[in-house]
Amino acid sequence: MAQKLNTQPYKGSRDFYPEDMNIRNFIFENWKEVCKSYGYEEYDGPFLESFDIFAAKSGDELVNEQLYSFTDRGDRKVAIRPEMTPTLARMVSQKINELPRPIRWFSIANFWRYEKPQRGRGREFFQLNTDIFGVEGIEADLEIISLMVDVMKGFGATEKMFEIRINSRRLTDNFYKKLELKDDQIKIVNKAVDKRTKISKEEFEKWLSEDAKLDNKQLKYLNDYIENPYPILEELTQEKSIGAVEMKNLIDLIKTSGLEKYVKFDPSTIRGLDYYTGTVFEIYDLNPDNIRAIAGGGRYDDLVGMFSDEKLTGTGFAMGDITLQDFLETWKLLPDFENDCEYLITLWPSQDPKFFEKTIQVSNILRDQGKNVSTWLDKDTKIEKQIRYADKKGFKFVIIIGEDEINKGTVTIKNMLEKTQEEIRF
Amino acid sequence: MAQKLNTQPYKGSRDFYPEDMNIRNFIFENWKEVCKSYGYEEYDGPFLESFDIFAAKSGDELVNEQLYSFTDRGDRKVAIRPEMTPTLARMVSQKINELPRPIRWFSIANFWRYEKPQRGRGREFFQLNTDIFGVEGIEADLEIISLMVDVMKGFGATEKMFEIRINSRRLTDNFYKKLELKDDQIKIVNKAVDKRTKISKEEFEKWLSEDAKLDNKQLKYLNDYIENPYPILEELTQEKSIGAVEMKNLIDLIKTSGLEKYVKFDPSTIRGLDYYTGTVFEIYDLNPDNIRAIAGGGRYDDLVGMFSDEKLTGTGFAMGDITLQDFLETWKLLPDFENDCEYLITLWPSQDPKFFEKTIQVSNILRDQGKNVSTWLDKDTKIEKQIRYADKKGFKFVIIIGEDEINKGTVTIKNMLEKTQEEIRF
Repeated sequence: MAQKLNTQPYKGSRDFYPEDMNIRNFIFENWKEVCKSYGYEEYDGPFLESFDIFAAKSGDELVNEQLYSFTDRGDRKVAIRPEMTPTLARMVSQKINELPRPIRWFSIANFWRYEKPQRGRGREFFQLNTDIFGVEGIEADLEIISLMVDVMKGFGATEKMFEIRINSRRLTDNFYKKLELKDDQIKIVNKAVDKRTKISKEEFEKWLSEDAKLDNKQLKYLNDYIENPYPILEELTQEKSIGAVEMKNLIDLIKTSGLEKYVKFDPSTIRGLDYYTGTVFEIYDLNPDNIRAIAGGGRYDDLVGMFSDEKLTGTGFAMGDITLQDFLETWKLLPDFENDCEYLITLWPSQDPKFFEKTIQVSNILRDQGKNVSTWLDKDTKIEKQIRYADKKGFKFVIIIGEDEINKGTVTIKNMLEKTQEEIRF
Repeated sequence: MAQKLNTQPYKGSRDFYPEDMNIRNFIFENWKEVCKSYGYEEYDGPFLESFDIFAAKSGDELVNEQLYSFTDRGDRKVAIRPEMTPTLARMVSQKINELPRPIRWFSIANFWRYEKPQRGRGREFFQLNTDIFGVEGIEADLEIISLMVDVMKGFGATEKMFEIRINSRRLTDNFYKKLELKDDQIKIVNKAVDKRTKISKEEFEKWLSEDAKLDNKQLKYLNDYIENPYPILEELTQEKSIGAVEMKNLIDLIKTSGLEKYVKFDPSTIRGLDYYTGTVFEIYDLNPDNIRAIAGGGRYDDLVGMFSDEKLTGTGFAMGDITLQDFLETWKLLPDFENDCEYLITLWPSQDPKFFEKTIQVSNILRDQGKNVSTWLDKDTKIEKQIRYADKKGFKFVIIIGEDEINKGTVTIKNMLEKTQEEIRF
């Protein structure tokens, strides 16, 4: 006998059985609905792209360690998309002179990265990408933050469950200038600040003093800023530092919009990607068992530069389905999914064709009324077994049409939840 | 200045701009709705699978010439799915003892094949796959045919635009036995019959007599059968050939179900794939400019054999988005898509923050009412330009809030279709 093949999916990928698909659709539908409520239009690109566009745009780790790339049968180097941004940049560039601005776009797509599978991370994941282009002011950043809040509220999340941490690259630059840091120091400081909550205070300070060569005064100033940024933000604003003025205005707008209970200004939010140039933000899960960012984004000033001579500013965010599902499960925000097919029409066990004809007739009528209807198709199955199947699958109504019902022109409807049944004319 | 990258998508793939996405969503939503109306549940598998499952299950042409396969960073041979069936078989096998039967499943997924791009064919396409498992009788075949008709009717297609051609592998075997054909002849005859409408009568007969070595009597009998199959079907039924009896019963059921105007019994419908064992069917476009199958399927008796010792029979069909879109375009069945965001709230050009605050307030109220609302975010744009944008994007209503409106507690609503406007309290 031939060796049987393994039934497991490829490592790090997921099978979506109907019960998993319910969750996926629940997530996608809320994403779509909220994006549409802000006037964002859906787009998608191909799953394979020329390798070049990732080499030019994505970070080194992504390209060298995580990208699925190969040579096609026509000797072109191609890659499976690990993120949406390069495709988005290509598509916007292609029609840069035709698209009325602002451009508001979102997509829900799957991506692959060769990573070690672990909680919250798989090799295949889906991601919502939401971006607005062509608005320079922080009003666009506010819109993205507001949309992020509505996405979370759409899932039933409250301010106890998550917070949106915001910061600004421009402000950070202002602050580093005041701190008199050099470029090579800045890189190290950014890394240390990004890891700050994951290491001890001693380790953090050692990193800054030994690796980044900060003196005691600089160290104290940095610590003060992270722990209580508002006095220094005020000071920088007085000095008319543009990053500080913008952040102050954004914080004011967040208050005016009634969003301050969801948003926290946090100077230690760095975001890894190089292309951010202004406001950055992430959604943080507040569950102590699950401390982690579940979405992130920011403003970038030059998305399309590698395709086009034009400059186009944008701001946007991305949210992955795996971390989000963990969030929803931890906070018990996933609903119980019901069978969205309500009716099972049984088939009276008999070789007489009239029973099957009746089953088909009744199902056609119900479908014409817009109902979802499943029918039993096997002529040899006892009614009891058909009802057990209905019970297992969660059908709400079972319709029985026997000799009696056919003679009288009726059908018997069993209500599976209330355990009642009635005979009605049909 | 650096060389700019190409903005075109990878050869044979498509970018889905919002206007393309409207069409894609229109197609997907009808697919979903009809499948759900028959009680089918949605599933999906990963985009990459182990190479082995395609090598074992897909046809030679697919594996040797069209499959996108490569070795991953962990030295596993993987492939991008070119079709759903192997994944479906793997997933069903994995839970074969848990899934209540019948199993009714559908999926809408993207696939890749390395093909020469041409009309109706790209390298990346989407496909609906709909299957029912665990019902041996032709009642399941009837259900799939009925579902296919409802999919076409769901798009607004009528019996003038398409027909469903049905045939049966078992019946064909019965007929070939009567014709006393040997296995090597059968292969050639199948190929010739499949290509029959694309070649001349002379070529067809030459193929059969010279390559398949059919004598004149056999040739005549075959031609008679293809051109008028009913007498021979009757004859075979009298002889109790199982394939003929099944086909006759299926034709009767199609009549009973009121589907005969859409369905044609056609002995020349062969379907390429080896795994079909019973009824086969395809949807055929009746437009003379577009003569082509737009969907196909059939019954297979052993889907899960390569994963499991159990036998599980199934019947199902697949329909691709590219050929379907051609069909819908040729027959003018695609609707005009409207902007599903109805409101644009303008921003009065001023540095005074009260205008932006008001814009945000009004948009929040409308969104809370379930409306889709876009807002203008730039403080320096003249109202006329904002209205031109609204016009270009197809917003139905534009809301204007100037100094006057703020003082009076009103907003001005412009109806863009009827070119009217009114001021209302808000």
